Amino acid sequence: MTTTERPSFPAFTTDDYRARMARVARDAGEAGLAGLVVTPGPDLVWLTGYRPTAITERLTMLVLRPDADPALLVPVLERPDVERAEGAAAVAVRDWADGTDPYRAAADLLAGSGTWGVSDSAWALHLLGLQRELPHTAYRALTDAMPMMRAVKDDAEVARLAAAGAAADAAYEQVLRLPFAGRRETEVAADLAALLRRFGHEQVDFTVVGSGPNGANPHHEAGDRVIRTGDAVVLDFGGLLHGYGSDTTRTVSVGEPSAEVLAVHQVVQQAQQAAFEAVRPGVTCQEIDRVARRVITDMGHGPDFIHRTGHGIGVTTHEPPYMVEGETQPLVPGMCFSIEPGIYLSGRFGVRIEDIVVVTDDGGRRLNSTDHGLAVVS
Amino acid sequence: MTTTERPSFPAFTTDDYRARMARVARDAGEAGLAGLVVTPGPDLVWLTGYRPTAITERLTMLVLRPDADPALLVPVLERPDVERAEGAAAVAVRDWADGTDPYRAAADLLAGSGTWGVSDSAWALHLLGLQRELPHTAYRALTDAMPMMRAVKDDAEVARLAAAGAAADAAYEQVLRLPFAGRRETEVAADLAALLRRFGHEQVDFTVVGSGPNGANPHHEAGDRVIRTGDAVVLDFGGLLHGYGSDTTRTVSVGEPSAEVLAVHQVVQQAQQAAFEAVRPGVTCQEIDRVARRVITDMGHGPDFIHRTGHGIGVTTHEPPYMVEGETQPLVPGMCFSIEPGIYLSGRFGVRIEDIVVVTDDGGRRLNSTDHGLAVVS
Repeated sequence: MTTTERPSFPAFTTDDYRARMARVARDAGEAGLAGLVVTPGPDLVWLTGYRPTAITERLTMLVLRPDADPALLVPVLERPDVERAEGAAAVAVRDWADGTDPYRAAADLLAGSGTWGVSDSAWALHLLGLQRELPHTAYRALTDAMPMMRAVKDDAEVARLAAAGAAADAAYEQVLRLPFAGRRETEVAADLAALLRRFGHEQVDFTVVGSGPNGANPHHEAGDRVIRTGDAVVLDFGGLLHGYGSDTTRTVSVGEPSAEVLAVHQVVQQAQQAAFEAVRPGVTCQEIDRVARRVITDMGHGPDFIHRTGHGIGVTTHEPPYMVEGETQPLVPGMCFSIEPGIYLSGRFGVRIEDIVVVTDDGGRRLNSTDHGLAVVS
Repeated sequence: MTTTERPSFPAFTTDDYRARMARVARDAGEAGLAGLVVTPGPDLVWLTGYRPTAITERLTMLVLRPDADPALLVPVLERPDVERAEGAAAVAVRDWADGTDPYRAAADLLAGSGTWGVSDSAWALHLLGLQRELPHTAYRALTDAMPMMRAVKDDAEVARLAAAGAAADAAYEQVLRLPFAGRRETEVAADLAALLRRFGHEQVDFTVVGSGPNGANPHHEAGDRVIRTGDAVVLDFGGLLHGYGSDTTRTVSVGEPSAEVLAVHQVVQQAQQAAFEAVRPGVTCQEIDRVARRVITDMGHGPDFIHRTGHGIGVTTHEPPYMVEGETQPLVPGMCFSIEPGIYLSGRFGVRIEDIVVVTDDGGRRLNSTDHGLAVVS
């Protein structure tokens, strides 16, 4: 395979990160929070550009307060890495050394009271350390406290998500030309991963190839099963391109589909289309889920649609807003999320169709454009 | 490169996992805990053999109680994956569906009071969900509450760690034959990764190649720098083999070393040797750190040794026991950990030497056996 051109984008600058941190600190104050505690992962990448080589038991923590400048506490041995991050120049970097108490150092950066937002994926070890050191503080997970923090993308972010989607589409178009029957799921998965990289992804996060009965397990990755003629195969794949995610699903048929596979596929296709057409500012997230679920339920497959309809996507693949019953957040232009209804018939086959969609002023725009019909592969 | 034979081990059985869970539940009771809350990651792998394809915002939680049978709460769409894990047959699997409250489901598995141990890396989102749902419970991180839970390895585990160490050693012996000068760090790192796989690793976690000034940053991975004759190069690499970790460091010289590199290397070598010779049951972890640090401090390099001397290793690369000032845990036969002193001269070069060591009845045994001398590469 040849390497194709990777789309290029100007890197986010120190000023970009400074502006994000300032906006978030202000929003935290308005949300009644004393500030935010941000640990390694998507929040920290988005706010500072800093991604440690590994997320470990050693505490790294960005503190954003409406009443103080941003501060980043890091293990001293990781300080050189931190200082190379574009956003580092916009924060006061402090360090702590092995053999000292990082939570004491952290406590100096927080006020001794108030409610703090904390990254969803912050380690319990660290949260408990803060709760112990600062017994008069309280904490809320950022998904609860500030679900909109990263949910509305600006134009530069939507452009990256669109590029990631286009690259995933190109990979899908190519994979349709490859043989399926007689090969293991893992072989097709490896091809998909190589194609995602070929079309510009710097990181491949998942390449689900769920053939026949394996397709009925929505979280099956890819296994040793040899794909056969007659199988329905769920392909769900994605990764990062310039730091932003792709996540697309299509279901294909190896040889001509049975009438049942075709019928189930049409139900899922209708559900996906209906949910997409429901997208517009002001509609709640749960309404998107309800629209998709209603189509599937009306066709008698309600119990076979065993997951929510979608999730936000940005610097990570799963983030708010979630298209799920109970989520009353209204859609806002710039939100990007998946619409991915599915039907799973245990022991037999599964069908899922997924696009990433961005909310526009008057509806939604798909960031994936490959055909939704049941493609026939060999 | 040809693929060499991968050592084989009998897989851990359902009974093995049942025995681990029973022992840990009993130990939790004796430690004054109401029980343990174990989330995806090394604790869950070790206790059940279950490793989700991704660790996400969807709650998965094993509950171990001295007064009840083990229970595992999982997202319904991941249930088929869970049931394939060897340990699943030893637990009652319960599930929750998108759109319902997982913390309410979790609360049913915990008693409404008492202090619970929780996996270090459990997400804050989940811990806060439990704290909210069960306001009369308290939590302690497992590293604090039961640091010994996975620290003492049995013979089957030591055998796997020894195999991982031997494979890492074989990779190192091969990398010495490759050219260094004129190639980028990333190229040597890719070779190291391929060699680790060739000698049986199923997963490569890190391949640090820190040449010249990059070696002075202990957490540098590998970058675009072209290696030059005269460089000292820190090679720190590891991954998983049959689920158990390797982690080895050697420092090499590209061409003949300068007198200064040689002198610094000898100090680190002496420190590593002295710490190894101090290993025996009953000696505290901090004493191992002190012994290494004393050698380096006596030679005037104390401020240049900016990290702890070592960390435990097992199903993950960093785990208790930590060889660090303040850790008064005595060594016990079966503990496995790294001894990895280093000296880092900012902007110039670094030297680190690391072996994995297992505590025996009368001392320590290295699980790495390659030469500690400063190897000269081309």
